[in-house]
Amino acid sequence: MEADSLTSTKKYAADISSIREAQLRINLYAHKTPVLSSETLNSFCGRKLYFKCECFQKGGAFKFRGACNAILSLDDSQAAKGVVTHSSGNHAAALSLAAKIRGIPAYVVVPKNAPKCKVENVRRYGGQIIWSEAAIESREETATKVLQETGAVMIHPYNDGRIISGQGTISLELLEQVLEIDTIIVPVSGGGLISGVAIAAKSLKPSIRILAAEPKGADDAAQSKAAGEIVKLPETKTIADGLRAFLGEFTWPVVRDLVDDIIVVEDSEIVEAMRHCYEILKVAVEPSGAIGLAAVLSDSFRNNPAWKDSEHIGIIVSGGNLDLGILWDSLCKAEL
Amino acid sequence: MEADSLTSTKKYAADISSIREAQLRINLYAHKTPVLSSETLNSFCGRKLYFKCECFQKGGAFKFRGACNAILSLDDSQAAKGVVTHSSGNHAAALSLAAKIRGIPAYVVVPKNAPKCKVENVRRYGGQIIWSEAAIESREETATKVLQETGAVMIHPYNDGRIISGQGTISLELLEQVLEIDTIIVPVSGGGLISGVAIAAKSLKPSIRILAAEPKGADDAAQSKAAGEIVKLPETKTIADGLRAFLGEFTWPVVRDLVDDIIVVEDSEIVEAMRHCYEILKVAVEPSGAIGLAAVLSDSFRNNPAWKDSEHIGIIVSGGNLDLGILWDSLCKAEL
Repeated sequence: MEADSLTSTKKYAADISSIREAQLRINLYAHKTPVLSSETLNSFCGRKLYFKCECFQKGGAFKFRGACNAILSLDDSQAAKGVVTHSSGNHAAALSLAAKIRGIPAYVVVPKNAPKCKVENVRRYGGQIIWSEAAIESREETATKVLQETGAVMIHPYNDGRIISGQGTISLELLEQVLEIDTIIVPVSGGGLISGVAIAAKSLKPSIRILAAEPKGADDAAQSKAAGEIVKLPETKTIADGLRAFLGEFTWPVVRDLVDDIIVVEDSEIVEAMRHCYEILKVAVEPSGAIGLAAVLSDSFRNNPAWKDSEHIGIIVSGGNLDLGILWDSLCKAEL
Repeated sequence: MEADSLTSTKKYAADISSIREAQLRINLYAHKTPVLSSETLNSFCGRKLYFKCECFQKGGAFKFRGACNAILSLDDSQAAKGVVTHSSGNHAAALSLAAKIRGIPAYVVVPKNAPKCKVENVRRYGGQIIWSEAAIESREETATKVLQETGAVMIHPYNDGRIISGQGTISLELLEQVLEIDTIIVPVSGGGLISGVAIAAKSLKPSIRILAAEPKGADDAAQSKAAGEIVKLPETKTIADGLRAFLGEFTWPVVRDLVDDIIVVEDSEIVEAMRHCYEILKVAVEPSGAIGLAAVLSDSFRNNPAWKDSEHIGIIVSGGNLDLGILWDSLCKAEL
């Protein structure tokens, strides 16, 4: 079977079984998020779009699925000392919430440039914040230090089979909610979300097309696909604060094998998509969450004959944690 | 049966049968809107809140339900000359869209102070705009003139049994989506929405409590309940542009008999609720749509012993058509 050969157990850090197990594990705690559609947005691109609104997930982003699965997977002795992670905010908040549900401490290393609302979410859910510099190296070093001091378990934001399995539950829901879907567009950063979504979706429906959406200023996944190996960038520059991480050893093979292509968009296209989400879809979406719509509206997608037959497109709206002032400033700047 | 005595056919312009018929009529065209919940918002008020998100309805507001039912109820000869209405925007856009679906013209009288995004919706759906002054009298006069000139059918925004029946379909959905609901909080303006919601909900579940939410600067419904007759105000002043109309002859009896109480809130409470909707619920909500949350968070609701046993509260989020600049300005002003 094609499905087996594409996504067999040995190949990747997660498979359809681990994703189904994750669904059973998190079912009681995670929201089954709704799928929204808009004929106005459909008319903009001549396709049918189905927005899987993970901004309505607990903590305001898909990250709760993976974090909850990881924390509920720990045995009692592992869990007792708590969990550690580093994150620009959404994974941190999600891990804090999942740790709170299990009644264990969560130590989160947060870069100084993380959006205020995401940091507030961490606090709201009882996570203990340790600040680091913005660079990924500083985040990782600080996390390692905390790990040594507390004896807690490291839960990486994406490079972890339990995380990938949790995120994959999105596809189980989406393909049940909308049977016709032939293509899913997913933001790519560290690759945890797209790995889970791709493994589950291609297992259930081998013909499905998985496209990644990535900002121009942090297009390491597109460069990795082109180079045939993981490429890390010296710096990233994009409004999409959730899309600045690089692929890891567990997510790269999935992106390499199961992601059909990567659509790179400009920040200005992301801002325009955020405006459409607010004005037409009536949903508060952060830049990373709007990038799928930006991709589907971009010339590079619309004019590519390879995607002409993508008619029913699922778009993963990954999160909605955005300071309103930042949204407003972005829109005003875009009009200058 | 209590349900029959409360909502029998003879008493009101709509009943459970006309509401069920409306549901069959509009089913193919209207969205079944999702119900969202947030443990953070629940913790703010110590109750379980269920947000029925009519901002995700076609046209961005519940109004499409009534407009679609009214237009699909017309026989072919009536429909041929088109429809006329006056509206601050949401009903106008909804009627334009429903008319477009049926392939007939819609003439809409729009007051000069209507929000830009609502007027754009009318244009997007092909409605023909005729401007009037802001006062309700000017709106009605202009509509009558258009009516005479075109021979079209008048579809009043709320004082019409077909409209009330369409809006009532919200309760059919909500009580199926969340079985535990014991209270529904509904914005009140002209009363079409709350009449439909109350008739359907009290027919299905006679013990249910229906509370209206109304802005202090347009509290004609609260004054009407107190006086025992329709009170019209010389002027209204509120940020909630959708809640400036007065009860009509068909909606007043329902509000008088089936609405348990009216909670009056300040504009500042509405703005704070809009902020919560954006930041916590991740939903773009217009002031009229946020008033239910404002009511449930208000001291007058929380400290009233009569509502102590309202544990599972449905909140009708009536619409999401709000210029982002206006939301931002409101929030900035609120912080001064």
